[in-house]
Amino acid sequence: MPKSRAKSHPVGFAPAVILVEPQLGENIGFAARAMANFGLTELRLIAPRDGWPSDRARAAAAGADAIIDAATVYPSLEAAIGDLTFLLATTARPRGMVKPVLTPAGAARDLAARGAKGERTGVMFGPERSGLDNDAISLADTIVTAPVNPSFAALSLPQTVLLVGYEWLQARGSQPSLGRATKCDGPAAEGLDLSGTRQATRAELLALFKHLESELDRCGFLRPPEKRPTMVRAIRNMFHRMGATEQDVRTWRGIVASLSGSNRRKGKGEGS
Amino acid sequence: MPKSRAKSHPVGFAPAVILVEPQLGENIGFAARAMANFGLTELRLIAPRDGWPSDRARAAAAGADAIIDAATVYPSLEAAIGDLTFLLATTARPRGMVKPVLTPAGAARDLAARGAKGERTGVMFGPERSGLDNDAISLADTIVTAPVNPSFAALSLPQTVLLVGYEWLQARGSQPSLGRATKCDGPAAEGLDLSGTRQATRAELLALFKHLESELDRCGFLRPPEKRPTMVRAIRNMFHRMGATEQDVRTWRGIVASLSGSNRRKGKGEGS
Repeated sequence: MPKSRAKSHPVGFAPAVILVEPQLGENIGFAARAMANFGLTELRLIAPRDGWPSDRARAAAAGADAIIDAATVYPSLEAAIGDLTFLLATTARPRGMVKPVLTPAGAARDLAARGAKGERTGVMFGPERSGLDNDAISLADTIVTAPVNPSFAALSLPQTVLLVGYEWLQARGSQPSLGRATKCDGPAAEGLDLSGTRQATRAELLALFKHLESELDRCGFLRPPEKRPTMVRAIRNMFHRMGATEQDVRTWRGIVASLSGSNRRKGKGEGS
Repeated sequence: MPKSRAKSHPVGFAPAVILVEPQLGENIGFAARAMANFGLTELRLIAPRDGWPSDRARAAAAGADAIIDAATVYPSLEAAIGDLTFLLATTARPRGMVKPVLTPAGAARDLAARGAKGERTGVMFGPERSGLDNDAISLADTIVTAPVNPSFAALSLPQTVLLVGYEWLQARGSQPSLGRATKCDGPAAEGLDLSGTRQATRAELLALFKHLESELDRCGFLRPPEKRPTMVRAIRNMFHRMGATEQDVRTWRGIVASLSGSNRRKGKGEGS
């Protein structure tokens, strides 16, 4: 491994992404892109079926050229993992092996904690068609399986890399300032007491916007014309932030009608 | 919406995935596949650039045919969201709008909690090249932005759908058993993007209330007298839920003055 990588992660080493016998160059590129999205940099390829370098990989990487350029190729898995102290294997399903199983979130916490202590870690991903074989999995410390819909469980290779990277970036961000208790605010802790009404539908809100904006146009509030779109968006955003109920919308319809309409009538009355 | 969907989610409604002007059929297919991986079923398409149905979408869906077959197409965003009570907008970056910002994990908790209560929710995803425009975002309650490597932030459309689905499945799994402390490890990305303004002070709000309520008294909206206190409280509560900024208060002062004052002047003019 190039020496320079040792200094590239001030909060600790990032895991290496190890693609075992990947089939499509395109998927290698998509995986590299997903790595770049989440700050992973080290790509190791074991016997890529369609050879290396790969134009299709570079095109699919969509700008993650640094990862493609620095990718290292190995003839065997054993040759690629010698420097690692902790190795994970991603699988779509249990494999009948006695081995710890982690979610991507749990794996990411482990990887981030080990990386922060200077450990070199890696995550293996198998070939698109078959996944990792049992020999490869037997070289891993732990299995990583993402929670998926059991009736449609097949994540693609780049999707799996994406989820591991996504969780790793978040876990790294939480190192070393642990215990962020203020973020533990699940849905039951807060909420809106609807008091017998219900949330407004988008159709009801859109009708309110139309009513209000037409009145505001009529009285000249939404001027000059070039500022109108910004003003309209600001007003709509306020109603969305409010979390309006069906009753709220009726109240606002009444307010708008009263402020403008009754005056209009009064105006007419005074004028007649 | 087909009636059958009402019974398809025993733990509550799943969010609709709303693709606004998607460009590539292939990406619609990849998005459908990601939906299937995580148990999302309802796909709404707004003006897909390359038409619908799409062979490329079906091929890329890799077996998620049921989602492709059931996808509904709308000519405009407004037509697609009328039945929803809570709408999220995915963006890659802040947009200069005063709007709550959630991570995918936080958004998923909110979607799962609302779905469990029978609310219909949706998540919007913008066109591949540009993302959602500000008009679309202004129709949303909340913005969702995934934590990414700031130097390589561009998630693809299917990747973004994947992350929202991944988090939703986990959040749904945690309903109603709340308090999943292990998910409380997100980056400090959630909160309200104030975009250069600040929250209104209570004094500014009270001045707004006084102005609005005096105008509503004048035009007879707050009648009969015994109902006035309840009505006033309801209106004030809406402003508090909105989390009004100083700029919002000034906007509302202008709206109230324009709707009532200009009509009053017009009334006088017509009457004189």
